Amino acid sequence: MKDFATGRLHVVVLAAGKGTRMRSSKPKVLHEIAGRSMLTHCLDTAAALNPATIRVVIGHQGEAVRESQSGREVEWVWQREQNGTGHAVQLGIEGLAAGSDDRVLVLYADVPLLGADLLGQLTASPAVVGLLTVQMDDPTGYGRIIRDERGRVQRIVEQKDASAAEREVREVNTGILMARYGDLVAWLERLESGNAQGELYLTDIVEMAASEDKAVEALVAEDVWAVTGVNDRLALARLERVYQARQAEALALAGTTIMDPARLDIRGRLHCGMDVSIDVDCVFEGEVRLGDNVRIGPHCVLRDCEIGPNSIVEAFSHLDGVVTAGDNAIGPYARLRPGAALDSAAKIGNFVEVKAARIGERSKVNHLSYVGDARVGDDCNLGAGTITCNYDGANKHHTEIGDGVFVGSAVQLVAPVTVGRGATVGAGSTITRDVAEGELAIARSRQKGIAGWRRPQKKRD
Amino acid sequence: MKDFATGRLHVVVLAAGKGTRMRSSKPKVLHEIAGRSMLTHCLDTAAALNPATIRVVIGHQGEAVRESQSGREVEWVWQREQNGTGHAVQLGIEGLAAGSDDRVLVLYADVPLLGADLLGQLTASPAVVGLLTVQMDDPTGYGRIIRDERGRVQRIVEQKDASAAEREVREVNTGILMARYGDLVAWLERLESGNAQGELYLTDIVEMAASEDKAVEALVAEDVWAVTGVNDRLALARLERVYQARQAEALALAGTTIMDPARLDIRGRLHCGMDVSIDVDCVFEGEVRLGDNVRIGPHCVLRDCEIGPNSIVEAFSHLDGVVTAGDNAIGPYARLRPGAALDSAAKIGNFVEVKAARIGERSKVNHLSYVGDARVGDDCNLGAGTITCNYDGANKHHTEIGDGVFVGSAVQLVAPVTVGRGATVGAGSTITRDVAEGELAIARSRQKGIAGWRRPQKKRD
Amino acid sequence: MKDFATGRLHVVVLAAGKGTRMRSSKPKVLHEIAGRSMLTHCLDTAAALNPATIRVVIGHQGEAVRESQSGREVEWVWQREQNGTGHAVQLGIEGLAAGSDDRVLVLYADVPLLGADLLGQLTASPAVVGLLTVQMDDPTGYGRIIRDERGRVQRIVEQKDASAAEREVREVNTGILMARYGDLVAWLERLESGNAQGELYLTDIVEMAASEDKAVEALVAEDVWAVTGVNDRLALARLERVYQARQAEALALAGTTIMDPARLDIRGRLHCGMDVSIDVDCVFEGEVRLGDNVRIGPHCVLRDCEIGPNSIVEAFSHLDGVVTAGDNAIGPYARLRPGAALDSAAKIGNFVEVKAARIGERSKVNHLSYVGDARVGDDCNLGAGTITCNYDGANKHHTEIGDGVFVGSAVQLVAPVTVGRGATVGAGSTITRDVAEGELAIARSRQKGIAGWRRPQKKRD
Repeated sequence: MKDFATGRLHVVVLAAGKGTRMRSSKPKVLHEIAGRSMLTHCLDTAAALNPATIRVVIGHQGEAVRESQSGREVEWVWQREQNGTGHAVQLGIEGLAAGSDDRVLVLYADVPLLGADLLGQLTASPAVVGLLTVQMDDPTGYGRIIRDERGRVQRIVEQKDASAAEREVREVNTGILMARYGDLVAWLERLESGNAQGELYLTDIVEMAASEDKAVEALVAEDVWAVTGVNDRLALARLERVYQARQAEALALAGTTIMDPARLDIRGRLHCGMDVSIDVDCVFEGEVRLGDNVRIGPHCVLRDCEIGPNSIVEAFSHLDGVVTAGDNAIGPYARLRPGAALDSAAKIGNFVEVKAARIGERSKVNHLSYVGDARVGDDCNLGAGTITCNYDGANKHHTEIGDGVFVGSAVQLVAPVTVGRGATVGAGSTITRDVAEGELAIARSRQKGIAGWRRPQKKRD
Repeated sequence: MKDFATGRLHVVVLAAGKGTRMRSSKPKVLHEIAGRSMLTHCLDTAAALNPATIRVVIGHQGEAVRESQSGREVEWVWQREQNGTGHAVQLGIEGLAAGSDDRVLVLYADVPLLGADLLGQLTASPAVVGLLTVQMDDPTGYGRIIRDERGRVQRIVEQKDASAAEREVREVNTGILMARYGDLVAWLERLESGNAQGELYLTDIVEMAASEDKAVEALVAEDVWAVTGVNDRLALARLERVYQARQAEALALAGTTIMDPARLDIRGRLHCGMDVSIDVDCVFEGEVRLGDNVRIGPHCVLRDCEIGPNSIVEAFSHLDGVVTAGDNAIGPYARLRPGAALDSAAKIGNFVEVKAARIGERSKVNHLSYVGDARVGDDCNLGAGTITCNYDGANKHHTEIGDGVFVGSAVQLVAPVTVGRGATVGAGSTITRDVAEGELAIARSRQKGIAGWRRPQKKRD
Repeated sequence: MKDFATGRLHVVVLAAGKGTRMRSSKPKVLHEIAGRSMLTHCLDTAAALNPATIRVVIGHQGEAVRESQSGREVEWVWQREQNGTGHAVQLGIEGLAAGSDDRVLVLYADVPLLGADLLGQLTASPAVVGLLTVQMDDPTGYGRIIRDERGRVQRIVEQKDASAAEREVREVNTGILMARYGDLVAWLERLESGNAQGELYLTDIVEMAASEDKAVEALVAEDVWAVTGVNDRLALARLERVYQARQAEALALAGTTIMDPARLDIRGRLHCGMDVSIDVDCVFEGEVRLGDNVRIGPHCVLRDCEIGPNSIVEAFSHLDGVVTAGDNAIGPYARLRPGAALDSAAKIGNFVEVKAARIGERSKVNHLSYVGDARVGDDCNLGAGTITCNYDGANKHHTEIGDGVFVGSAVQLVAPVTVGRGATVGAGSTITRDVAEGELAIARSRQKGIAGWRRPQKKRD
């Protein structure tokens, strides 16, 4: 017997099932954990093993499944009729350019938390068949792993066929399996559908192997979640929470302060500098980078952003596609949209929306404003209610504000317009023409007083 | 012995207790689980059994308890002095128009998670007395169910009277009990208050029944939460979470994607179409209907609304009394108040409040606006800072905006006012008169520039 | 043997460790639980014991540690080189003005949940050495408490030195220890560093005491969290949640309705009147007082405020440094900043920011406004988009609004300015001069209509 695996590795991913209990118009394997489909999790894990081939067996809504992975180098195999796992693997290895000593690893696209480390152990085994098994407190319903007195795996017994003694066995089959290609081909040909469901069972190859005295090794997964499959959305939700909890734990151990690991959602990748802290109920999506000493307040949503060091993002902020230089104060209730860029020490306050706009160093937009398609210089102050009128109903126009500009409250800047360096705009002005450097621009009606005015009275019905 | 229950069912609900440990000025049974009082939960469950009578025994703050159920057909019985459960049931069945073979079910208004299914099993029993019991890991303090060698219930032994062997018993009394009316009347008359608390204990009838060789059956509740009573607000909070978790699980199994079942609150009824997804920390109140493919972002609050299919509600939105047609984009930070109605593909953006207003197809109110008492046509664009001035300090007035209107930023529409189809309103205008179809309306001062203006300087103290 | 403790109590707090696994630029003991540093927790607990002396042994980043406690009366002792707990305590008691019968209590600054009650029990013991121990399900890695057949503590055996039988012992050493000063001095002098790490182990004194037949008592902590130390931020997060859960439970038992005890964060002190209810995901910081019947909606953040009775704070509100008189309706999306004060029945609506401003009785600021540096009288109505222009780019100015004023929508009040009692300001006005009592002030351009205006067309690229 060889004491390490030889040959190349081929992965067959089973993704053809219907997933009726998901009660969805979407294929089961496209449901997501942490923002990536279960299939993507599975294929990312498979790819991490550097196999010679990855084949995905598809069936129900196979087109949608295939399209979800556009750009990924995998081979697609159709299983038009569902005839059991044995049948799926038969199709999966059909015409495979494999040598007898190559190994085939069978994975399931609805087992999203399986890690490459564990599979690396399984595929490194010199055994002819390698099974992934798990100990369950309540194994009812699962196929039991039957070993002989020396601990060697003999066969897998299904619940209904198990004797009372066999039902006591708590080690169960996960379905995940590795086999030597040459043997697998031969065994699959001998599979029979003479069982309750009239299907070809992949697991039958274990008994064939044992009867041929081929080495069968069972690797016991210590983490039951890693081998848990998803059949309904409650299972999906549970795995989501396990996944999120683990991300939170890893982040905490790596040195991020997390106010509640059970209330953190990362759907993508979150990179944290030193001494970052994240308050409760934050959601991170896509690729988010937080610099050293960044503090994220409670109830924030960040997607695809990069927040510079020493910045504070206050509660209820919603940041998407933003880059900030550092020392920024943001929120509460700041809504930064794609293309927003904050230079060093720029400050965005409450009920402020910024889109496709760069805000210069130390500049402030503190209250109730909309700044879009604009460039704001350094050391500016935009008063409450500042609005860049960037849209004329047909096209978007640009607003340019120089350094050191002071814009009073409730000012509309009708783009395209430029406010020169050091200029001042009076409160309540609608600015339609460029403002020169250092100029005070004002567009305001004279205040009139009407004495003794009587306000409308409440009408009676 | 009969092998099924005969006679009619009468339910007596005990709701007279003071609930001191709630530390509340409100009667205990009016504290809420999932937005309904515990008494309402109990009476809804009782009503589901279709009994001939429901009687509620009230005492402490009985008027408030009674008023909380106005419109419900139940009979109210006063227990002015608290003299034990036996006394309460004596009062509860006094003058009941019941036959001897009728059954009386005794419920407690502070046991909110008890389900009608379990009670249906209990009341279907042909036994003369039916007890609801439960197995507890730590039964300390509870009355133990003592059975004979054949498993027949003999009596209930209170903690302090129990022998060492009896204390080992883990099956305990829940207090919930069904009894044949004829026997119950006789037994209640024989109750004595010669016990530690000097009260009449309902549970004493069990021993009477056994001594008369009447069949006593104990139904063991598998779900301990279903029979858990609330004595303080910690127990209230725990039952709230159990209730919420179960709602979330049921919703997930029925096909809704729930990002965190532990962070979903439904206080009322939530109806979900196919492939709805609900992000973390959402709260639903009243009657909420979500159409197919609706996606609710994190941290949203929805009350009594109907969201049309394919709509997206972004983070931090607060929707109350809203109907949307479908394909709507709402939020983040959208605040829709009662009477808001969105036609197909209408869009409400951030920091926008809409009240008693209909927004036409494909129309957009994207930023920092208040639209109240208005009708906005199709294909309109209301710029940032649009305000309908619907209130003159005394009365509310209507704003009518035709199809295809473009309202520039920071426009006030002083109601009553009509903006005709295809009209345009310039940014910064206060519109006090109707705008004709296709017209450009503008109310704006001429912009002036004052060169070389010196801004105020920082005062020194 | 004395049957109660005599002498004075001296506390030595060990706070010199590096805390490498925190991966922080901040000293470990300055990391926070519930808004207070672990060191502060420890010192507050120590102070509650009324000791004669509190000494804190500092080393790594000792200056920062010391500065964090400015104003607190403790003595600081430097441990420049880390040479074990025995060494630290040697330094900690050096030159202590203590009598032989005084007691020394050794605490650890990274054990934040230890309570004064438990320590009170430990220090009240008449024993010469008092150990705090705890039972662990899995004691692997901890020092085991070895007792003789009469249950007397003999010594502490470290994991690596323990026999198979000793490893079965589940009672472990917490490190927290009290000893008679006279004996402690003598024992510390005899400590030797002939162990694996070449350090002086404080725990070696236990065996010395036993060998001298001095009474050693072990107090078993029932609460494992109380004696759990923090070595990384995952442990920090876990203790944070335990601490928060306990606060929530205590609050519920005291009579506050908490929608989810697992989703409440109190970082400071929260005082609740009768029948307060707090919805999910709220965060309280500093000193917050909620009057009777106050209702806090979901997703609110409150810091240092006092909310008057019968007030409702709706979802997504952010209150900091606010005092309200009662019967106030606040939010949703209300942002009240320091110096905001609401008189009775004043109402603040959505997307409204108030800073350093007093709002009179029954006055309303309902929508999209900024009120700063102002005094608003009683019975006022400030329309949507009201902005006090309090900042001229250099200085802040005051706005004074009399009783019964009606301010239309989108009005800017350019401070300093006074609006007299009963005055009215027309929508869209920029008010730069004082408005007399009862006057209607208006600053508005005449509305013009341009018929048949053609809007810009979408440009093609």
